[in-house]
Amino acid sequence: MSDRIPRRPLSPARMEAFSDGVFSIAATLLVLDIALRPPGSPMEQVVRAWPAYLAYVISFLTISAAWIAHTAMTDRLALSDTLLVRINLMLLLVVAFLPFPTTLIAEGLSDTSGERVFATVYGLTLLTIHLLAYALDSYARHERLYTDGQTDDQLQSDRRTLVPTVIGYLVAILIGLVVPAVAVALYFALAVLLVVPFREIRHLVFRRA
Amino acid sequence: MSDRIPRRPLSPARMEAFSDGVFSIAATLLVLDIALRPPGSPMEQVVRAWPAYLAYVISFLTISAAWIAHTAMTDRLALSDTLLVRINLMLLLVVAFLPFPTTLIAEGLSDTSGERVFATVYGLTLLTIHLLAYALDSYARHERLYTDGQTDDQLQSDRRTLVPTVIGYLVAILIGLVVPAVAVALYFALAVLLVVPFREIRHLVFRRA
Amino acid sequence: MSDRIPRRPLSPARMEAFSDGVFSIAATLLVLDIALRPPGSPMEQVVRAWPAYLAYVISFLTISAAWIAHTAMTDRLALSDTLLVRINLMLLLVVAFLPFPTTLIAEGLSDTSGERVFATVYGLTLLTIHLLAYALDSYARHERLYTDGQTDDQLQSDRRTLVPTVIGYLVAILIGLVVPAVAVALYFALAVLLVVPFREIRHLVFRRA
Amino acid sequence: MSDRIPRRPLSPARMEAFSDGVFSIAATLLVLDIALRPPGSPMEQVVRAWPAYLAYVISFLTISAAWIAHTAMTDRLALSDTLLVRINLMLLLVVAFLPFPTTLIAEGLSDTSGERVFATVYGLTLLTIHLLAYALDSYARHERLYTDGQTDDQLQSDRRTLVPTVIGYLVAILIGLVVPAVAVALYFALAVLLVVPFREIRHLVFRRA
Repeated sequence: MSDRIPRRPLSPARMEAFSDGVFSIAATLLVLDIALRPPGSPMEQVVRAWPAYLAYVISFLTISAAWIAHTAMTDRLALSDTLLVRINLMLLLVVAFLPFPTTLIAEGLSDTSGERVFATVYGLTLLTIHLLAYALDSYARHERLYTDGQTDDQLQSDRRTLVPTVIGYLVAILIGLVVPAVAVALYFALAVLLVVPFREIRHLVFRRA
Repeated sequence: MSDRIPRRPLSPARMEAFSDGVFSIAATLLVLDIALRPPGSPMEQVVRAWPAYLAYVISFLTISAAWIAHTAMTDRLALSDTLLVRINLMLLLVVAFLPFPTTLIAEGLSDTSGERVFATVYGLTLLTIHLLAYALDSYARHERLYTDGQTDDQLQSDRRTLVPTVIGYLVAILIGLVVPAVAVALYFALAVLLVVPFREIRHLVFRRA
Repeated sequence: MSDRIPRRPLSPARMEAFSDGVFSIAATLLVLDIALRPPGSPMEQVVRAWPAYLAYVISFLTISAAWIAHTAMTDRLALSDTLLVRINLMLLLVVAFLPFPTTLIAEGLSDTSGERVFATVYGLTLLTIHLLAYALDSYARHERLYTDGQTDDQLQSDRRTLVPTVIGYLVAILIGLVVPAVAVALYFALAVLLVVPFREIRHLVFRRA
Repeated sequence: MSDRIPRRPLSPARMEAFSDGVFSIAATLLVLDIALRPPGSPMEQVVRAWPAYLAYVISFLTISAAWIAHTAMTDRLALSDTLLVRINLMLLLVVAFLPFPTTLIAEGLSDTSGERVFATVYGLTLLTIHLLAYALDSYARHERLYTDGQTDDQLQSDRRTLVPTVIGYLVAILIGLVVPAVAVALYFALAVLLVVPFREIRHLVFRRA
């Protein structure tokens, strides 16, 4: 704890409310990027809009993954402080920005000219969201803002997913400089990996069998 | 309960906050699809936008019905777990997508060329919302996440409405392949049936009489 | 209370959360209707957009007034029931619709051709919001959903503002059929009257003097 | 306290919920102003959109600063009253308006013709947000709505930042009448100064060293 500045302990309640607001609005605004893609018959136009659907799903899942990590973080939070609130605001600034690269990627997958640039901008935004979520968690841990009862095992296992995630995004971004479509496929795979709880599903299925 | 994986019980509070955010934003974004329909006098343009009003009302009522079911579900929830949060996120992904098929149907009802495709896409989205709301409830029941005091009668009666709802949507979608306008009328009727509490209204009126 | 149907008492908490979501989003979406009005110098374009600013302020104040009435209502609520939730959803459906007539009025004040139609549509929407807010309050009172400690004086004084409000809107709508600009001025005056607490301000000023 | 009008003490909970809604939506809607700036290669279009990114960051940080001040205010609030709710609604009206001047500034920085007008409108909006946040705090203090335990030192230090902030914005607006780009740079600097907790960061760094 601080020894010189009197730390003002803040209730995490409104930080959660504001964050839930930004997460849910950013996720819901993504739909505004989806539009039919003329020319063609109505059916063709609906089908040809698939890059917009894919971009919607990837971005929605990435925001979901960040929200899940954020919830896990604030659930353990005993108190909040000035810097934590600011790091959180930086995270929200990037989350609220995500609809823009999502539009780019939706366009980039059909107009191949901009594909490479757009895939890189998108990947960097996704990576930044994960890095800021990690910074938030690290700061809370370092400043001992978490409740005491928390088992260290849980914290360890949560952190263990970060390094492969960051490596995954870096590899995807580099591949995207050569084959942008593969990068987008990797972003999708990473989002699915982060959100779908394979361990729990396997467990549920085997228990039933 | 799980016998191998230590289940982390999650507080349902933030799941509710995030869900309320997505439900209310998706419902409010629907208005952005409404626009005057030139050419014609101002009065004609206002009147000729009726497919947009109808689509707005159907989608708003469907989101309302999903929100009512969701509220009834989380009100009974004693705790939440990893998979429940994910199923909920899938539900929200489809709810947040609804403004797009709503635009399609608003256009489809005036431009008859795409009517059939748009009515089908719209119906499938509405059906998916109901199926995912059912999956959420089934999982919570199966994993015994509900509070104990809950009477089984109530649960039974809630579930009883699902099968006719799903059949209703399937019938409407099939009819829509032939006569799209009838499908839209049926989606409207189903939404009204799900939201308007006819039993309570009859009771209220008869008690007064 | 009901004598035949077992009434399921609902917690008003999520009804409040969903309502606050719709109220705040509808109020914030209003800004999307504001745009510069070419041609002309930048200064002229900013100034000539005044109908959009005025429409923004009127709609924001009307939503604020509805939100204030809604808060006063739910603050007194001891419990909620099936019908109350539905009446509330109807109110939210109209509140979430308000951005559309707001666009119309912003356009109507500059293009005089549609003025009359747009002022009427706008006025009817504002009136419906007030009527549904009243219906909500009446139902809660009739079904004795309010907490007992509530003084009847307070309830009486709240209800006393409704009749003049409804008369005011009806008069404004009728005048708008002849002189639309006057109707808009009256909508503005009514919104200001409903939101600005003249009694409290006078009291504050006189106490200071 | 009032001696003639029976003051109705309001719970600050829903005022916070509505405010968090407007703050988070206004912040998230800012992204809708960002778009590629043709003509040019995709890379050039992404880079040439920099005024939109800058405007996004300044507005997001200004809303963040207002939200931080608002949270600090409501955290200390023991109760709320009629006038406080109204002053708060005026603040939210201007916060929800911010996306419009943000669009202007993003355009103004590339089209130099309107630069001066747009920088002034933007600056005045930012200044008004700070003044209304100050009015809110002053009223709460004057009417003794804060909890008693609050140390006066804290309150003093919070208020001490306002006068330099207002002077800063006034200077920036005046400079903007001559060199608009400098005004925008100053708005950025002021937003950073208000959000970044330099004292805490220096403390954190020195403690670690």
